[in-house]
Amino acid sequence: VHDQDFQATVQPGLFYKDMNKTLAAYGLFFAPDPGANASIGGMLANNAAGIRTVRYGATRDNILALEVVLANGEIIRTGSRSVKQSAGYDLTHLFVGSEGTLGIITEATLKLAPIPEHFSAATAAFPTVQQAAQVVFEIIGSGLEPNALELLDELAVNIINTEPSINLPPGINLFMEFSGASETNLHERMKLVEAICHENGCKSYAKGMGREGRAQLWEARHRLFEIELRYFPGQDYLLTDSSVPISQYPKLATTTADLIEELGLTGSIVSHAGDGNLHTTIFFPKDDHQSRQNAVTLNKKIVELAISLNGTSTGEHGVGIGKAQYMPQEHGPDLTVMQNIKHTLDPKNILNPGKIFPSR
Amino acid sequence: VHDQDFQATVQPGLFYKDMNKTLAAYGLFFAPDPGANASIGGMLANNAAGIRTVRYGATRDNILALEVVLANGEIIRTGSRSVKQSAGYDLTHLFVGSEGTLGIITEATLKLAPIPEHFSAATAAFPTVQQAAQVVFEIIGSGLEPNALELLDELAVNIINTEPSINLPPGINLFMEFSGASETNLHERMKLVEAICHENGCKSYAKGMGREGRAQLWEARHRLFEIELRYFPGQDYLLTDSSVPISQYPKLATTTADLIEELGLTGSIVSHAGDGNLHTTIFFPKDDHQSRQNAVTLNKKIVELAISLNGTSTGEHGVGIGKAQYMPQEHGPDLTVMQNIKHTLDPKNILNPGKIFPSR
Repeated sequence: VHDQDFQATVQPGLFYKDMNKTLAAYGLFFAPDPGANASIGGMLANNAAGIRTVRYGATRDNILALEVVLANGEIIRTGSRSVKQSAGYDLTHLFVGSEGTLGIITEATLKLAPIPEHFSAATAAFPTVQQAAQVVFEIIGSGLEPNALELLDELAVNIINTEPSINLPPGINLFMEFSGASETNLHERMKLVEAICHENGCKSYAKGMGREGRAQLWEARHRLFEIELRYFPGQDYLLTDSSVPISQYPKLATTTADLIEELGLTGSIVSHAGDGNLHTTIFFPKDDHQSRQNAVTLNKKIVELAISLNGTSTGEHGVGIGKAQYMPQEHGPDLTVMQNIKHTLDPKNILNPGKIFPSR
Repeated sequence: VHDQDFQATVQPGLFYKDMNKTLAAYGLFFAPDPGANASIGGMLANNAAGIRTVRYGATRDNILALEVVLANGEIIRTGSRSVKQSAGYDLTHLFVGSEGTLGIITEATLKLAPIPEHFSAATAAFPTVQQAAQVVFEIIGSGLEPNALELLDELAVNIINTEPSINLPPGINLFMEFSGASETNLHERMKLVEAICHENGCKSYAKGMGREGRAQLWEARHRLFEIELRYFPGQDYLLTDSSVPISQYPKLATTTADLIEELGLTGSIVSHAGDGNLHTTIFFPKDDHQSRQNAVTLNKKIVELAISLNGTSTGEHGVGIGKAQYMPQEHGPDLTVMQNIKHTLDPKNILNPGKIFPSR
C-alpha cells in the first residue's frame, strides 16, 4: 500500500472486498464496485464497473501500472506510478479489458480514493420508467455528482421486498447515494435532488438514510441476483448489459420495458442508470424454448439499439463468447486493428482463444 | 456539442481555447489546460496536460472516441459515446499520446466538465523548496481536491514580478486554486489549506483572490515562458518535464534545485506540483557550450531520478526525438511490445518516423 500516493500494488488473486477491508485502515478504497466479491484479476480482465462508476470510473480508469506475462513468456511492466505519463504507447489501458487475450496480468498498481466523510442515501418511487429515467438524466445534467444512481423496475422492487429488512414503496425505484466533505454541502445537494424527483412525478421519496440504511440498501442491491434466483427456483436466465450516452438513457430504458412486455417475458430492469448502463434479468423455465428464444431476441434488440444510439453492446460484463457476434457491428474496421494487435502479441493464439472475436 | 452528455465531437484543427469560449455558453469546458492555445490534435498527439490535470486528468482521461486514418488509408472509429465500454480492446487510449506514429486522428469526442460556480485562489511564499513541496504533498493527501497546485521557484517569481500587474512576495511561491458547489464548502477547505501552509513555515499567504485576481494569476503563469524569453533576450533554453508519484515530489523538487546550483545553471523550476510533474527552464547564451552541456546533464539526471522514483521521463510534453534515448530505461521489454504494435499498424514506417523509439 502506497498510502501517501493513494495507490496499492496488488496481485490479481486478491478479492476487492477483502482488499477494501484492509485499505479502510488507511481511509482509502478501490472504488469500482461490481457487487460480487470479484478478484482484481477478473475486474482487470473485463474492465469491471458497478454502482460507483458514475462517480469514480470503471476499473480501467483506476489503474496506473501492470505487470503482464506475454504469450512468449516474457514479463513486461506497463505504465508507471506517476499519475501523468506521456512516454510512449498506453499499454496499460490496452491490457485492461482485453479479457486475457493479450497477456496474463500478474500485478497491478491501483489508484485508490479517500473514503468520503459524509454520506446520504435516498430512494424515490415513480409510476413510469420514463419519469425515473428523466430524473437520472437531470441529476447527472445538474452536476450533482452522485456516488451511485441505480434504477430498479417494479418487478425488481417486488422481489427485493421479499427480504425481511427491506420495505420499498411499490413502483419503479431509484436508489441514490451522495457524499460530501461537509453535511451542509450534502444537505444543499439533497434538497435539489428531492426537488427534481418531485418535479418528475415521484410517488414517494425516502431521504436521510444514514450509514446503516445505506449499507442495507446496497447489500440488498448487490444480493438482488441471488434473491431473484431463489424467487424463480430452478429457472434459467439471461442477463443483458448495454450502455448508452446518458441523453439516450430514457429511450433505452423505455424501449426495453416495452420490449419485455411485447415479447411476453418475465424479467426485471436493474441498471446503473447514472452511467447509461442498463441490465435486464430474464427468467424462464429451462424447457420453455419459446421464452428462451424471446430472451435472446430481447438481448439482440437491446444490443442493436444501444449501438445505434452511439453506445455499446457491453458496458461492464465484457464480450467473452456470447457477444463476439456483435463486435463487427459495434466496431467496424477497427475490429481488424484489434485482431492485428492480438495476432502480434499472441501469434499462436494460446491466450484465451475464442474470446472477443467472432469465429470466421 | 452534445451538451446533454457533457461531450463535444470536434476536428483536430480546433484550438482548445477557442473551443472553450464556445462551450462557455453551455456552462461546460474541456478541462486539460496546457497553457498555450494548443490544437486539439496536438493535445491528443502528446497526451497534453497542464495546470488543471491534478483535478481533471490529462487529455487521455478526457477522450471517449476517435476517428483515425491508418497508415493503409483506412478510416476507423474507436470507442463510443457511452461513458462505459467493455467491448474489445481500448484503441482510443492507444492512439492518444502516440504522437502521430500509429495513425492520424481526424475527429475526437471529448468529455467536458461543468464550469464550477465558486472559485477561490491563493498564493503562499516559502523559504525553501522542501517546505513548499511538503505543503503540496499534504494538500493532496488531505483530499482537498485542488483545481491547480503550481510551484514557482524564486527566480520564476522574480521574473513574473516584472509584469506590471503582478506583485508576488519574493521566495518560492505556490499558486493554488480550489472550486466548489457552495461558498461555505470552499471557505472550509481554504481554512485548512491556510493552516497547512502556516504549519510548514509559510512566509506570506494571500487568500481570497476572486475571479479577476485568479484570471490575472493564471494569465501570468501561462505567459511565464514568454516573459522569460524577454528576460533572457537572445539566449537559448532547455525545458525539462518529468513526473513522479506525489510522495516522491519533495525529493524530486529539492534534488533538482540542488542540481541547478551544483551545475551553476541559470534556470527556474515551474511545476504542476499537484501531479508530481516538475519542469525546469534553463537559459544560457547561444555560444556558451559548457552551460548547454550542463543543461543537458541536468535533464539527464532529472529524467533518471524520476524513472528511479517510479515516475516518468515525460509527464506531458511527450517523447518526440529528444527523449527517445530514455525509452529503453523507462520501459524495458514493453518497449518491444510498443515497437511491434507500431510495426503492425504502420509496417512501412510512414507515420511520423523517427519519433518515440530510439534509433538502432
